[in-house]
Amino acid sequence: MGQGEIRMITGGVTAPKGFTAAGICAGLKASGAPDLSLIASDNDAIAAAVYTQSQVRAACIDYCQQQLETQPSARVILCNSGQANACTGQQGWDDTVTMATAAAMALNTSADQVLIASTGVIGQRIKMDPLLAHIPQLVDQLSDQGNHAAAQAIVTTDLVTKTHALETTFNGRPVRIGGIAKGAGRIHPNMATMLCFITCDAAVSPGLWQTMLTQATDQSFNQVTVDGDTSTNDTVIALANGQSRTPAITAPGPEAEQLAAMLTEVCTYLAKSIARDGEGATCLLEVQVSGANNDPDARKIARTIAGSSLVKSAVYGRDPNWGRIAGAAGRAGVTLDQTQLTIKLGDFVLLEHGQPKPFDQIAAHDYIQQCAERSTLTSGQQSLQSTEQANDIVDVANNSQSAERCAIATEALMSPVCITVNVGDGAGTGKAWGCDLSYDYVKINAEYTT
Amino acid sequence: MGQGEIRMITGGVTAPKGFTAAGICAGLKASGAPDLSLIASDNDAIAAAVYTQSQVRAACIDYCQQQLETQPSARVILCNSGQANACTGQQGWDDTVTMATAAAMALNTSADQVLIASTGVIGQRIKMDPLLAHIPQLVDQLSDQGNHAAAQAIVTTDLVTKTHALETTFNGRPVRIGGIAKGAGRIHPNMATMLCFITCDAAVSPGLWQTMLTQATDQSFNQVTVDGDTSTNDTVIALANGQSRTPAITAPGPEAEQLAAMLTEVCTYLAKSIARDGEGATCLLEVQVSGANNDPDARKIARTIAGSSLVKSAVYGRDPNWGRIAGAAGRAGVTLDQTQLTIKLGDFVLLEHGQPKPFDQIAAHDYIQQCAERSTLTSGQQSLQSTEQANDIVDVANNSQSAERCAIATEALMSPVCITVNVGDGAGTGKAWGCDLSYDYVKINAEYTT
Repeated sequence: MGQGEIRMITGGVTAPKGFTAAGICAGLKASGAPDLSLIASDNDAIAAAVYTQSQVRAACIDYCQQQLETQPSARVILCNSGQANACTGQQGWDDTVTMATAAAMALNTSADQVLIASTGVIGQRIKMDPLLAHIPQLVDQLSDQGNHAAAQAIVTTDLVTKTHALETTFNGRPVRIGGIAKGAGRIHPNMATMLCFITCDAAVSPGLWQTMLTQATDQSFNQVTVDGDTSTNDTVIALANGQSRTPAITAPGPEAEQLAAMLTEVCTYLAKSIARDGEGATCLLEVQVSGANNDPDARKIARTIAGSSLVKSAVYGRDPNWGRIAGAAGRAGVTLDQTQLTIKLGDFVLLEHGQPKPFDQIAAHDYIQQCAERSTLTSGQQSLQSTEQANDIVDVANNSQSAERCAIATEALMSPVCITVNVGDGAGTGKAWGCDLSYDYVKINAEYTT
Repeated sequence: MGQGEIRMITGGVTAPKGFTAAGICAGLKASGAPDLSLIASDNDAIAAAVYTQSQVRAACIDYCQQQLETQPSARVILCNSGQANACTGQQGWDDTVTMATAAAMALNTSADQVLIASTGVIGQRIKMDPLLAHIPQLVDQLSDQGNHAAAQAIVTTDLVTKTHALETTFNGRPVRIGGIAKGAGRIHPNMATMLCFITCDAAVSPGLWQTMLTQATDQSFNQVTVDGDTSTNDTVIALANGQSRTPAITAPGPEAEQLAAMLTEVCTYLAKSIARDGEGATCLLEVQVSGANNDPDARKIARTIAGSSLVKSAVYGRDPNWGRIAGAAGRAGVTLDQTQLTIKLGDFVLLEHGQPKPFDQIAAHDYIQQCAERSTLTSGQQSLQSTEQANDIVDVANNSQSAERCAIATEALMSPVCITVNVGDGAGTGKAWGCDLSYDYVKINAEYTT
């Protein structure tokens, strides 16, 4: 029967069969916002992970890596927000082990089936007493309706929660992948971590699952840039528990391709959500590069353009400034022939084969403005146009009593400002996502001090 | 008799014997500000140069490289500001050749002794008619008092001019190096070029002079970051005309070391001037790294910290946020052991061997604030504390009638905000310079649109 179509479904990490989730306020954050989350599979799941490349890493990163090197399976992901548990020395390691042991006991599993993630302020130890005291309550709350609560409890200063799920069929039986993510929004004061947890009910071999996750991450989370700063805690964990009862995918083939495509799509959606929620951002920026010698080169050029402070400032200024785009492309570290360079903004051709083209400056300005207007975070929520508004919203976001965070709306991701760049005749293509650079980025990162 | 001490002198590029300079308004800039400059040696000088690494390069870069590959000597540097002559195709190349030919005729030398530099808006052709019409006047103005005029005519939206000169003696005879630079300040709308022209009256062999310039650039201009964007036009040219009548330096030795040290010092001073004049900056940031495996690793870490948007925002917020410094060090692409990481801000120890240290937060905040107050650009000029002021100053800077640009004051470079990082037991050390990230950076780069 083969594979069915891929469609979007609700439920996030609890959409796949055999997964539950929970999120509660455990008193780890000074604000009283939700700060402890749990995702659990009914059975031991195949586990893959990708971590920060930073040389300064939180204890939980070392812990997960060590666990998964021993055996590529896990049943539980426990995540705290508020304290990053990075630069905390031996104490930080001991706290991570204690968290895993406590969760394992409460869930009646072994500690080596528990993975740990943390996000929050670097250099701060996790508040272990309230955390441990709340684990029984957290486990009690586990439910197949717990996705939103878990998504809320992993964020720090994000304005919106990020969740996505897809379904297809293999041989007529449903297979699902879901995910939640946090990050890159509202670094306050330095909660820059990107986290993503993915669940899947397909049966897949560990090596293949890890390969799929690495490739999906390369095309999604590794192609998102908000300010170029990488965190000590960045983690993507993907669990596949096989409860779809579809045949195990153990080798490349049509099912593996479809599963990989779904995984990449979930990661891409969540990655774009992170970029759109970038601190101070008023719009999502999508850069598409073609004609490079290979995909990695194309991705590198796309990432450099999306990460250029000059390009980002121009987008915030609604300025069709192709000189900055050309400049960023040129310094990406990829050999290119500038006489081949073509740059488009939306449908406006700004540069063609290295020659400036006349275009309607005002219409191009309006195009950027309209993209921004269409991509506000939710219909009820203003994009951050002024520092006064930012101030209000940050205050709200840090007040758990009033902060009912909205989920990222799919519509907010549908109208990015599109920059299309062709660099030659090669077959290499790549995309990257970012956001504009506004006063609010500076405000958020300068004025709200430790 | 050997070498004497090194001392600072006035005169910039005209301090070395046998050099004259001039700068005039040729009508290339819409503002009417000075926009055409000339530096000339009385005789053919040994010439070395370093160019942008960008793959998108202005015609003048290709032209200089081609000239100096044929013969490493030049007598004249002609520079226009206002139009970058980048992404201008064959016409751009032809204009560069025409400029060189016209200058050579007016100076009665051959065109292959003329180097060309341009800075300004990418994609715009140089206004050739007024340029060519003004060359006789420019040549008439050449004088050993012309340093300030030349320094003024190469800037675009810099707030201050940058000039420096040093003198020593070899065997009792004076030897001098002088330089002028522009750049990285006030990108308006995309005049991001960094230019530096250096003159020297020592006699030195071409290969050695090029090596000295490359090494000096690696430690100075390549260690300055304002926003990570590299220009299509970045150029450093160094001329050595031998008029000091000191023995030719043709091999490594004490004289070569002293000359290299002077060259590095001139480049470092000018590089720091550029960082201090970074768009929207309120202070100069100096990052010193030690304990790395080698100097390039140390320089890479220093550059990553100085270029981190999060670190820069924290400095603008006067926030002693060592977590962001650790995070930037960790993602520099250099292997390091975080248990060896020690971070100081001024004299405050924030992290020692990977362990957070208690420190006086308020005193550390005050340290940053005091550095900023001591490093205002000139005593008579306010640092840019508010967008209103930025607005006024940018307006002034773009109005040639009222814009008598000040020279960078040495005092402004004496009180950087110092971040000191030790990463281990290695012998590698390195420094980098940057500036804080303020609202004004965004304002300047977003609101003043093309």
